[in-house]
Amino acid sequence: MKKDKTPTACHLLLAACLFLVNTGAAENGHRLWLRADTSAQATVITSHIGATAVIAANELRKQWQGSPVILSVKNTLSIKDYGNEGFIINENSQKEISITAGSEAGLLYGAYHLLRLQAIGAAIGTLNISEAPKYKIRLLNHWDNLDGTIERGYAGYSIWKWDELPQTISPRYKEYARANASIGINGTVLNNVNATPQVLTSEMLQKVKIIAEVLRPYNIKVYLSINFSSPMALGGLNTADPLDKDVRQWWKNKVKEIYQLIPDFGGFLVKANSEGLPGPQDFGRTHLDGANMLAEALAPHKGIVMWRAFVYHPTDTDRAKQAYQEFTPFDGKFLPNVLIQVKNGPIDFQPREPFSPLFGAMQQTPVMSEFQITQEYLGFSNHLAYLGTMYKECLDSDTYAHGEGSSVAKATDGSLFGHKISAIAGVANIGEDTNWCGHHLAQANWYAFGRLAWNHTLSAESISREWIRQTFTDNEEFITPVAEMMMQSREAVVNYMMPMGLHHLFAWGHHYGPEPWCEVEGARPDWLPSYYHKADHTGIGFNRSSTGSNAVAQYFSPLREEFNHIQSCDERYLLWFHHVAWDYRMKSGRTLWDELCYHYDKGVQSVRKFQKIWDSMEPYIDAERFAHVQARLRIQARDAVWWKDACLLYFQIFSMRHIPYELERPVHDLDDLKKIKLNMTHHN
Amino acid sequence: MKKDKTPTACHLLLAACLFLVNTGAAENGHRLWLRADTSAQATVITSHIGATAVIAANELRKQWQGSPVILSVKNTLSIKDYGNEGFIINENSQKEISITAGSEAGLLYGAYHLLRLQAIGAAIGTLNISEAPKYKIRLLNHWDNLDGTIERGYAGYSIWKWDELPQTISPRYKEYARANASIGINGTVLNNVNATPQVLTSEMLQKVKIIAEVLRPYNIKVYLSINFSSPMALGGLNTADPLDKDVRQWWKNKVKEIYQLIPDFGGFLVKANSEGLPGPQDFGRTHLDGANMLAEALAPHKGIVMWRAFVYHPTDTDRAKQAYQEFTPFDGKFLPNVLIQVKNGPIDFQPREPFSPLFGAMQQTPVMSEFQITQEYLGFSNHLAYLGTMYKECLDSDTYAHGEGSSVAKATDGSLFGHKISAIAGVANIGEDTNWCGHHLAQANWYAFGRLAWNHTLSAESISREWIRQTFTDNEEFITPVAEMMMQSREAVVNYMMPMGLHHLFAWGHHYGPEPWCEVEGARPDWLPSYYHKADHTGIGFNRSSTGSNAVAQYFSPLREEFNHIQSCDERYLLWFHHVAWDYRMKSGRTLWDELCYHYDKGVQSVRKFQKIWDSMEPYIDAERFAHVQARLRIQARDAVWWKDACLLYFQIFSMRHIPYELERPVHDLDDLKKIKLNMTHHN
Repeated sequence: MKKDKTPTACHLLLAACLFLVNTGAAENGHRLWLRADTSAQATVITSHIGATAVIAANELRKQWQGSPVILSVKNTLSIKDYGNEGFIINENSQKEISITAGSEAGLLYGAYHLLRLQAIGAAIGTLNISEAPKYKIRLLNHWDNLDGTIERGYAGYSIWKWDELPQTISPRYKEYARANASIGINGTVLNNVNATPQVLTSEMLQKVKIIAEVLRPYNIKVYLSINFSSPMALGGLNTADPLDKDVRQWWKNKVKEIYQLIPDFGGFLVKANSEGLPGPQDFGRTHLDGANMLAEALAPHKGIVMWRAFVYHPTDTDRAKQAYQEFTPFDGKFLPNVLIQVKNGPIDFQPREPFSPLFGAMQQTPVMSEFQITQEYLGFSNHLAYLGTMYKECLDSDTYAHGEGSSVAKATDGSLFGHKISAIAGVANIGEDTNWCGHHLAQANWYAFGRLAWNHTLSAESISREWIRQTFTDNEEFITPVAEMMMQSREAVVNYMMPMGLHHLFAWGHHYGPEPWCEVEGARPDWLPSYYHKADHTGIGFNRSSTGSNAVAQYFSPLREEFNHIQSCDERYLLWFHHVAWDYRMKSGRTLWDELCYHYDKGVQSVRKFQKIWDSMEPYIDAERFAHVQARLRIQARDAVWWKDACLLYFQIFSMRHIPYELERPVHDLDDLKKIKLNMTHHN
Repeated sequence: MKKDKTPTACHLLLAACLFLVNTGAAENGHRLWLRADTSAQATVITSHIGATAVIAANELRKQWQGSPVILSVKNTLSIKDYGNEGFIINENSQKEISITAGSEAGLLYGAYHLLRLQAIGAAIGTLNISEAPKYKIRLLNHWDNLDGTIERGYAGYSIWKWDELPQTISPRYKEYARANASIGINGTVLNNVNATPQVLTSEMLQKVKIIAEVLRPYNIKVYLSINFSSPMALGGLNTADPLDKDVRQWWKNKVKEIYQLIPDFGGFLVKANSEGLPGPQDFGRTHLDGANMLAEALAPHKGIVMWRAFVYHPTDTDRAKQAYQEFTPFDGKFLPNVLIQVKNGPIDFQPREPFSPLFGAMQQTPVMSEFQITQEYLGFSNHLAYLGTMYKECLDSDTYAHGEGSSVAKATDGSLFGHKISAIAGVANIGEDTNWCGHHLAQANWYAFGRLAWNHTLSAESISREWIRQTFTDNEEFITPVAEMMMQSREAVVNYMMPMGLHHLFAWGHHYGPEPWCEVEGARPDWLPSYYHKADHTGIGFNRSSTGSNAVAQYFSPLREEFNHIQSCDERYLLWFHHVAWDYRMKSGRTLWDELCYHYDKGVQSVRKFQKIWDSMEPYIDAERFAHVQARLRIQARDAVWWKDACLLYFQIFSMRHIPYELERPVHDLDDLKKIKLNMTHHN
């Protein structure tokens, strides 16, 4: 058969075969990126035989197809440079490969690293590798409720089967641990930040203990989200005042109880005085009082408190400013085992936000970034949105806290301000769906988060390529176009949902579809789109410049000035920081309105392009995953048009301008779109 | 203000104004193409003062803005050349305009002709015009039921208010008469061909009489569809056998009763032994027996019988052949006042069919064509499909009955075979919607049918242009692009519904959406799409060549051979006449499958182009009609994608080939499309 690069006869035949032949091998995506052949029978010698070292050795024995591997834990000075979890991979003159680490965990990460190099075809030449994680604590946050539902979860119910525990241990727990270990995740918060006190009952802790035991050999610690009023709900106290002696003692006792069951328990994640959750302010105290009380209880056990900065009140003050206003006064006053967990942007996981000004502003307190892996605001598990680019965009943003080069990454990894602890969190997109994440390609976001948590200097593109290669095929004819598609995908979502700094145009409740017109009687104004887009006959956008809410002042110079002036403001954030006239002339030469139309149209066209790319990939991969992704892209293509039509037709009421005639026209009527009411509060 | 041809600042301003200003003048389309200023007060002298001449004179008085007009009925030989309804328009040296005709009807048509010239800006220079209609009988067929519903009606309920008649006379009747007269329609069949016997009750005839009286001054005769079993249902006879003496007498009596009420009654339209309707075959007789019996009863009153050839049986024989097989043996045996009414194509008003082989084949019997103005198979009143092109395509088709140049038009207008009577019928798209036809632009199909019935040598384009100019504006910036859009619109529907000769892929019952997969247990095979598309793993299409049903043999040479050979067959009819292999190489160089995909895609892209054209027309016309058509085009754009996806995804099961990757991908999944069930049997 003739072989050439253009997808002609050969591909046609292959495509035809896909219709006829059922390969029999179910490719349901359950194996994630861990698809290496497991029949290698490699020679592996290990200096340690702890559970973690044994896992490392066994993974290599089954999969490694190269020279013999020697695993060694050493405490030499050179190893200590790479921290407790780092590793060195060398090849000696006998062509033996040594993985050396300061701990068994380091061996495990070294083993997965070596296997990854093999899987992506990079285990070539003489190996001379040393790695250490950029963040000490690399966490998933599960927004899983004890009843099995997942807040903002779009891949089925929770993998944590609390009803079955502690008697029944789902095989999923170990699969989960292995997958996370393979990308360097070393901690997981098992339950929703909107926490119920019940998670701390003794009965529940017995169940948590079981999960911790499954995860421990994979070097993954468990953490819990707690409800601040637990002393009242569980302890029968009449207050949860953090300065109350009995309350403080209750927490100390509870923490002690936890550590008796789970000696390496990680600590607490706290959402307090936020969106209706109880907190220290309910008792006239502060976030500082609350965090330090818990930190004091956890400190003897080396546990940490991750106190979320996601607080805002339905006042007249710009919501984007509130976390900064609330937390910066406490900088330097938190106990050493407190971290402030800050969402990447000032609002709430929008398709695009500028970075939160708390990054860089709090310098005496470890600040950790919270990313959302689950796509609450990016099309759930229906839309392709590779988030490696979004994580990188935030991590690489320069805060200018210590002058140029003070990236968010450096402001959070401990290097810029010299903190001993550093952490990063991602809200998981994992559910009990066979393929874990609902959308096959959404697995890449879990993967990318883990890889960046280990090394934030990796590029989003290289991560996408290594993920594709491990997950699908080593055929470059597939990898290159699919990586290209993934790299453009988040920008496509931004374009068809809310380009140029627009934010929170989502439908009430489910955050899936567009409702820029949304009005709900008696609703908090800051939960309504008009609070954010402020469209009127003069223009659109939130004036956060010095003539408006002055949120720009929370950023360091020269960013403050750059954002403040409409001419210098990055146009990606234009409507975030400015209320802009419809006829404002953009850098492209177009008016603001025309540019807005072009962005929405580009989003639609991008998804259509993704469809073309994906469909032409049919010859290269299994029919099952091909069809699954194909079907989701079709939904996305329809949704993109829905978004475009809804936003443009609605804003047109204010702009009173026509959509540039060269652009594809709306196919919906605004009145019809306004009638759409989806019943998808939980997408389980 | 600067004035240039590109829609820039000026148009932007206009567009903006449309949002702000409500002009107050309701442009609901009710006035159709009759929008001339009525304040002219012209001088008009008329030789006759019959009701029809008075209407002619009054129309001119109110609207004509030129020289005085003299209306004269004459019986000179020169006038007689133009028949009873023709006219001559001349200008004398005193700049007086004379309209001369052989009857008042001719004056009426002359008056409307002059006013049309004025409206389209063509009443310039010295007028020297003579016109005579190509068809003597120019009919609308209303498929209106006595209960007010309309079979295949998409513009609301019937305009005939039988419940109110004879006491209340709707002002609509006169408006209807005037509109029809203005385009030369001179007859109307008031009720559905699926006729109930009740239409011939004495009570009903009293009502018909009233309508006839309103229409008469406008030179429009009324006709009725009759039910063949009426003698049994109404007359109490135990048979409707056309050779039965009592039956024959019953009809003679009934006809006499009708003519006593309506002296100029036109005659009967008959659907017999067709789709469950009774007919002479139920009594062992033939269509010939039935038609001649009615003709005999009508002849003394100068009434005619229009006997429909739309008959087919659920047998193994190709449905497309049956009308020909049934009727050609009777050629020459019908009484002189019988016409055979034949649908334009051999099946049933599909988006595209070759012409019926009965045209040209029946030479000793007047054959009349039946077109569908209502869009049963072309998207109802939601889709833009200007049918002037479709009518012309059929009328201009060469039957080769008397060698080259034997067009369908000539085979039906009496000229080719020397018949004294000739007729043409269009199934009306008129309902009680304010704008008459549901879709504003669908008025053009009523208009075009009338104009072509008068003169089938007019071009579809010139008709579209004169219609646009009268209906919307005389601004060329509007007329040219809109005419272009209209001219392409029917081909667009063909492309996104059923290109290349595909036919009857419609959903069961409503004929709106696609159901190429449709299976209904126990259904007549010839009512199911698979009967027509015959898609399988080898190819697609109905083999009507000499190796198949040999329907091609019903055409004259050389058409017969042209259709018969796949290489010479017009590709527009390819799958009508041939079962074609998926990899058959088309003239474009593409495979059949790829070509099919390209056609469907082109259909979608065409509608998107129409949207662009229409949206850019906003500055030129009223906001009301602009928005109405805009909304319909949006529906059409969505439906086009629906059609494309449904057909391509379904046929792909058989073709086992991918849609060419350069084409826009499907956005629906076949399984979802199969679930769509619309409840739209009557779209009233």
